[in-house]
Amino acid sequence: MKIVVLKFGGTSVGTIDKIKNVANIISNYLKKKYKVIVVSSAMSGVTNELINKSKKISESFSDAEYDVLVSSGEQVACSLIAGRLIHKGYKSRSWMSWQVPIITKGPHKNSRIDLINKSKMLKYLKDGGTPIITGFQGISDENRVTTIGRGGSDASAIIIAKFFKAQRCVIYTDVEGVFTTDPNKLNKAKKIKVISYEEMLEMASLGAKVMQPVSIQDARLNRIDIEVKSSFNKKPGTLITKRSNIINNKIVTGISSTHNDSKVTLIGVRDKPGVAASIFKPLSKNSINVDMVVQNISANGKETDLTFTIKTEDLNKTKKIIESNRSIKFRKLILKKNVSKISVIGVGMITTPGVTFRMFQTLANKKINIQVISTSEIKISVLIDKRDTKKALIALHKEFKLDNKK
Amino acid sequence: MKIVVLKFGGTSVGTIDKIKNVANIISNYLKKKYKVIVVSSAMSGVTNELINKSKKISESFSDAEYDVLVSSGEQVACSLIAGRLIHKGYKSRSWMSWQVPIITKGPHKNSRIDLINKSKMLKYLKDGGTPIITGFQGISDENRVTTIGRGGSDASAIIIAKFFKAQRCVIYTDVEGVFTTDPNKLNKAKKIKVISYEEMLEMASLGAKVMQPVSIQDARLNRIDIEVKSSFNKKPGTLITKRSNIINNKIVTGISSTHNDSKVTLIGVRDKPGVAASIFKPLSKNSINVDMVVQNISANGKETDLTFTIKTEDLNKTKKIIESNRSIKFRKLILKKNVSKISVIGVGMITTPGVTFRMFQTLANKKINIQVISTSEIKISVLIDKRDTKKALIALHKEFKLDNKK
Repeated sequence: MKIVVLKFGGTSVGTIDKIKNVANIISNYLKKKYKVIVVSSAMSGVTNELINKSKKISESFSDAEYDVLVSSGEQVACSLIAGRLIHKGYKSRSWMSWQVPIITKGPHKNSRIDLINKSKMLKYLKDGGTPIITGFQGISDENRVTTIGRGGSDASAIIIAKFFKAQRCVIYTDVEGVFTTDPNKLNKAKKIKVISYEEMLEMASLGAKVMQPVSIQDARLNRIDIEVKSSFNKKPGTLITKRSNIINNKIVTGISSTHNDSKVTLIGVRDKPGVAASIFKPLSKNSINVDMVVQNISANGKETDLTFTIKTEDLNKTKKIIESNRSIKFRKLILKKNVSKISVIGVGMITTPGVTFRMFQTLANKKINIQVISTSEIKISVLIDKRDTKKALIALHKEFKLDNKK
Repeated sequence: MKIVVLKFGGTSVGTIDKIKNVANIISNYLKKKYKVIVVSSAMSGVTNELINKSKKISESFSDAEYDVLVSSGEQVACSLIAGRLIHKGYKSRSWMSWQVPIITKGPHKNSRIDLINKSKMLKYLKDGGTPIITGFQGISDENRVTTIGRGGSDASAIIIAKFFKAQRCVIYTDVEGVFTTDPNKLNKAKKIKVISYEEMLEMASLGAKVMQPVSIQDARLNRIDIEVKSSFNKKPGTLITKRSNIINNKIVTGISSTHNDSKVTLIGVRDKPGVAASIFKPLSKNSINVDMVVQNISANGKETDLTFTIKTEDLNKTKKIIESNRSIKFRKLILKKNVSKISVIGVGMITTPGVTFRMFQTLANKKINIQVISTSEIKISVLIDKRDTKKALIALHKEFKLDNKK
C-alpha cells in the first residue's frame, strides 16, 4: 500500500471553512490513489480554552483529568473532518486513540507513544477507508487517556508514519515551510526546498519554530521523509529527509539568530575537575537553560575564565545562584545583556573548508566584533552585540548565496 | 454498599462555579458515607454548539460522527467535576463509556444501554473512589461511540442505578421538583413531595418537562426511587417511587394542561373494521402526534363520528393528508383551533368514586363547556376552549385541595 500520513495543525482546522479545505486536501491525495492516514490537532484556541477552565477549577488540576479534558479537542476536530469526507462521498471515520489503540508509556501530560496496534487500522485502510486519528494523545496500560508531552500531534503523526511504513509524513501548518532564516527578520529569506534532519534539528533548536526537535529526531531515527507545507495555499513546502537524498547540497542551508540573550563570564575560576558541574548543576535545577559554553585554556594552570549564555529573563536568578554558590571560587563575575547568537548551518560545511573563515571575514568586513565562538560538525555559532544582529544576518545571508531573488 | 447515583443536568454544570457547587453536593453525600456514582451531562449550551458545527459541515452529517462529536461535551464536564473533587481531597476520576464499558444496542444517535460491565467500577467504588461517568452515551459492539436517543443522561443514570443496585437515583436539575401544576401557569402550584411512577408518567407525557417518560418508565420497571431536585438550593425535591411506598395518597396528585391544541372531527365515517387505522396510519407516517381519540357510538350502525386532537402546528398538514386519503370516506371534516386539554391525575381516584363527577361539576359551575372526555385508571382528561384554561385550572386546583397555602 502507498500510504501517506497527513497531519493538520490547529490553525489548519481552526474554522469550519478550514476543515472543509482540509477535506479537499485529503481528497486530492485519495484521487492520486494514496492510502491516507490523517492525524489532526484540536481546532486552534480550543486547547487553551480547556486549559483555562481547568485552572479555574484548580490551580493544581489533576494531570490525569487534564489529559481527559484537553483530548476532547482533537476528538471534535477529527469527527468534523471525517464528517466532511463522508459528506464528499468518501469512506472515512474518526479514530480515537483508544479505538486504534495507541498505547503510551510515561506519566500523564508527558507520555510518549510506545506501541500502535495496527491490525484494525490496516483492515480499514485495505477496505478503502480514510482514518482520521486524534493527535497528541494515547491510552496508558491502565486504559486511561494520556497526552504526549513533547512534539504533540507532530510526534503522533511521525510515530504513526513509522508504524504504518508510510512513504511520507506531510505536516500541514500555517507556514509555507522552513526558510533560510526567519522571514520576519529578513525579507530576503528563501524557502528551503530540501533539508537534512541534522540541519533541521539545528535550525529547530535555534528557534525555527516549525517543528519541535523531538519530532524531527523521531523522523530521523525512523528515516521518515517529512514535508512541511501550508494548508492555505498549494505552494510546495520543505522536504526534511536524510542527507544522502539531497543532491547539490549548498554549503550553508540556513542562518538562525537569537535575541534576548545574556552573557555570563566568571573570571579566575579555580581550574580543577568538577568545577563546571558545580557551576551548572544549580542552574539546571532552577530550570535555567544554559546555551553556549566556552572555557579558555588556563594561563597559569590554576585559574581559568568561563563564559556561557542564558536567556536575559534568567539573568537576575543566575546572578543570585552563582553568588550564593559556596562550592565554587572565582575572582570576578561579569554579566552582559544584549548579545545575539548567529549560527550558520549546513551539512555542506563538513566537506567544504573555509566556511569558518568566510563567516569571520564577512563579520570583520562589517566591523562586527565576535565575542564567543562555538562550532559543531554542521554549525558555526558566534556571539555578537545585539545591535549588530540585523547587519550580520544580511551580510551572511548574502555571503552564503541564500538571498531570494524576487 | 450504600450506593447512590447522582445525575447532574446541563444547567447544573453550566459554569465553573456551578461545577464547584456540584462537587460540594457530591462531597456532602460522601461525608454521609454513601458510595456515590455521578453521571453528568455536558455543560449547557455545549451540545448545541457542537451540533451547529456539524450542520455547517454537512446538512446530512454522519450519525456515527455526530455521536463522536457531541459525546465530547460530557467528557469535558466529567473531567472538570473529577478534577474539582480531587482538588477537594477526594479520590475521584472521570469514566468515559468506553472505559466502564457501557454497551449499547441500536443505531447511532438513537441507541439504548444494553449492558454495563460492573467489575472495574465496583472495584473502584470499593477502593473508595467516586466515579464521574459521562451520561447520554455508550459504545457499540463495534467499539464506536454511540449516544442514547431518548432520555439522554437521565436514562444513563437510571440504568446505572439499576445495574449497581443503587438505593436511589437523584436527578439534579434547574427546577425544584415536580409541581401539582405548572408554576408558570398557576402561582398556587405546590411542590409534590412524593409521586408514583404511574402518576409521574401521566404528568410527564402531559407536559411536565422534568423528566422524559422513557426514563420514568425505566425506573418503574426496575423499581428505582428517583429524587428530582434543584442543584441551586438545598430544598427537598420530589420523590418518584412505587405506589406502595406512598402513604396518605391524595385523591388527585396533579393537574396538567396543554395549550396550542386543535381538534379534528370527521363526521359520518363509514363504521367498519380498520377505518381508524386507515385514518391514523398516514398521520403517524408524517410524524403527526395524535393525542385524545374519541369515537362516538354509531347511531345507525353504518356511520360514526371520530374526533381527535393534534398540535395546532400540524393542523394544515393533517387537513391535507385526510382530504387526500382515498381509503377513507366521510361526510364532513370539522377543524377547530384553540382547544386545551385539562387532566387531573392521581392514583387515589382508583379507590375514590366521584372524582369524575367533582371535576365535571366544578367546570359546570364555572360555565366551562366540555367538548371531549377521555379517562384512564388514574387520569381524567377533558377538552375545553383555550380561553377557559386558566379559569379551569384555578377551579380544579382548589377543588382537589392542591393549593399552596403560602
